[in-house]
Amino acid sequence: MWGGAFILVLALAVALAESVAPAERKCQLSGLWRNDQDSLMEISVLRDNGDFQGQYLTRVTLSGGCAQISPLRGAQQQLGEEGWPTFAFTVRWDKFSNASTAFVGQCFVDAGGKETLSTMWLLREAVGSLEEDWKATRVGRNVFTRKRTTKGKILPNLSPRCEAVSSPAP
Amino acid sequence: MWGGAFILVLALAVALAESVAPAERKCQLSGLWRNDQDSLMEISVLRDNGDFQGQYLTRVTLSGGCAQISPLRGAQQQLGEEGWPTFAFTVRWDKFSNASTAFVGQCFVDAGGKETLSTMWLLREAVGSLEEDWKATRVGRNVFTRKRTTKGKILPNLSPRCEAVSSPAP
Amino acid sequence: MWGGAFILVLALAVALAESVAPAERKCQLSGLWRNDQDSLMEISVLRDNGDFQGQYLTRVTLSGGCAQISPLRGAQQQLGEEGWPTFAFTVRWDKFSNASTAFVGQCFVDAGGKETLSTMWLLREAVGSLEEDWKATRVGRNVFTRKRTTKGKILPNLSPRCEAVSSPAP
Amino acid sequence: MWGGAFILVLALAVALAESVAPAERKCQLSGLWRNDQDSLMEISVLRDNGDFQGQYLTRVTLSGGCAQISPLRGAQQQLGEEGWPTFAFTVRWDKFSNASTAFVGQCFVDAGGKETLSTMWLLREAVGSLEEDWKATRVGRNVFTRKRTTKGKILPNLSPRCEAVSSPAP
Repeated sequence: MWGGAFILVLALAVALAESVAPAERKCQLSGLWRNDQDSLMEISVLRDNGDFQGQYLTRVTLSGGCAQISPLRGAQQQLGEEGWPTFAFTVRWDKFSNASTAFVGQCFVDAGGKETLSTMWLLREAVGSLEEDWKATRVGRNVFTRKRTTKGKILPNLSPRCEAVSSPAP
Repeated sequence: MWGGAFILVLALAVALAESVAPAERKCQLSGLWRNDQDSLMEISVLRDNGDFQGQYLTRVTLSGGCAQISPLRGAQQQLGEEGWPTFAFTVRWDKFSNASTAFVGQCFVDAGGKETLSTMWLLREAVGSLEEDWKATRVGRNVFTRKRTTKGKILPNLSPRCEAVSSPAP
Repeated sequence: MWGGAFILVLALAVALAESVAPAERKCQLSGLWRNDQDSLMEISVLRDNGDFQGQYLTRVTLSGGCAQISPLRGAQQQLGEEGWPTFAFTVRWDKFSNASTAFVGQCFVDAGGKETLSTMWLLREAVGSLEEDWKATRVGRNVFTRKRTTKGKILPNLSPRCEAVSSPAP
Repeated sequence: MWGGAFILVLALAVALAESVAPAERKCQLSGLWRNDQDSLMEISVLRDNGDFQGQYLTRVTLSGGCAQISPLRGAQQQLGEEGWPTFAFTVRWDKFSNASTAFVGQCFVDAGGKETLSTMWLLREAVGSLEEDWKATRVGRNVFTRKRTTKGKILPNLSPRCEAVSSPAP
């Protein structure tokens, strides 16, 4: 019986720690994130100047078909003590057709410690000439939340096997 | 008299070479570019995987005031033989307030060999909470043309002295 | 006891009707909608050519302060039998400062009959000269769902009293 | 000889009037405009509340093929004495596939009296489901300048004959 009470207290303590502690720290870009389209991205530890690298796994593509892990690079603005940082990054779609994507966004932490990355993106497709340039750019929005996971570079493990070649997308 | 004729022929040959040769080569991102707002950017030589770095000198800022040279990083999509490449890059506004910018675009070469970078960008400002997130993102378009210059990293030399701190902009 | 069974059957029938019937009809723009920022809009019955009018009540403004009901006008594309229609509309911020907003979007009905308007918008602020034109346009996304209500033009009744003058927003 | 001098003086006066007078008046949306892609639009006289109607003739389409005149509707913000007005309008692509377009912009008059409409637009294509919603919206910029013409509703006269059906575009 005492064991049961102890476990209950422990569970409460953990829940409390999880709900309170994150609200106090600054929003951290590093880690694994999932967006509302089930795309995943993993951001490595940031350098002192704000530069970061990572990997992006899109679940959706312009042409349909399976997607692959693509490298991302970006920078977070360096802040003073107050405020949530903004950031921007680009994704290089290695195995895809000729298109480029860039995101801008800001990291928020709500009262419960839940982290949200609110982003907007531009997706640029290649066109054959300047006359077709007008239709080359798509715009959209994605919201990312942190995906809890065990430590380590796990994105490759989550990636499906993929033989086909298709077009990229956020 | 023959000397005059020789010079004329030489001039014609040079003109011919200038108007024909550039049209044949692929569009090269590296070098110095100026946009329609007189902002300058210098892109370093690209790595084999398409990654590139450079510097951006904006002439316009959200808050007014002078601007400063800021580092940019991005990636160009790797192409086969045909087509103009798309690219994306971000600018980290080192000495500015909390805002982030990302560009996507494509490089074009017209029949006369003139290179154009047609880009669109998102500028993300920091806001205080998710409730204000809706108003944080600006969008715009910039067209860059190559700025002829002598060799070397010249952007620092073109930059005005600047003591003030102000907000960034494409 | 039979009464209880009857009520149960009736409840099931109603639930069935609600979940099935709406999914079969086309998405109807007319009615009252609420977006993820608690802004409301009411769209009147569409004309045969797709033109529609309505009212928009924004809960958020660029300058803070209270908002007011503003007229909207737009058009829905006319479809054949299949597919969800796209639409576009503009809002004229009568009592606000000099800014204009336009939305584009599409109406979706999910398997359960729930209607969603997925929209993106541009918000254009006035600037003093072409040199400042680059910073004048904001972009964002809003998702609207139908707000159940009693019949009639109810938006004025939902609108708070508002004396102040402020800036508009989607 | 006096006749020649008189004509010279008259010409100078006219030139002076043309270069000075337009700079003093407010920017007028009504009339015929041409953009950088050779699309034309004609805006009718504005109503007192700022509402306007007109016609749009696009030269470019998503699917290629010829375009047709489409009705536009919008609103200009009402101003006090100072500043250039912003506006927004939508185009209903009557004879095209399921896509909708909305513009926002501002009218500028430079020191020489030249009028410019700086606009950005969103083009929404229909997609089959919410899962594809992310890729449905394109964004771009267009600059319009006034096209001098004789009085009257002339856009129909400028429109090419067009039998084919194709997709719309700004």
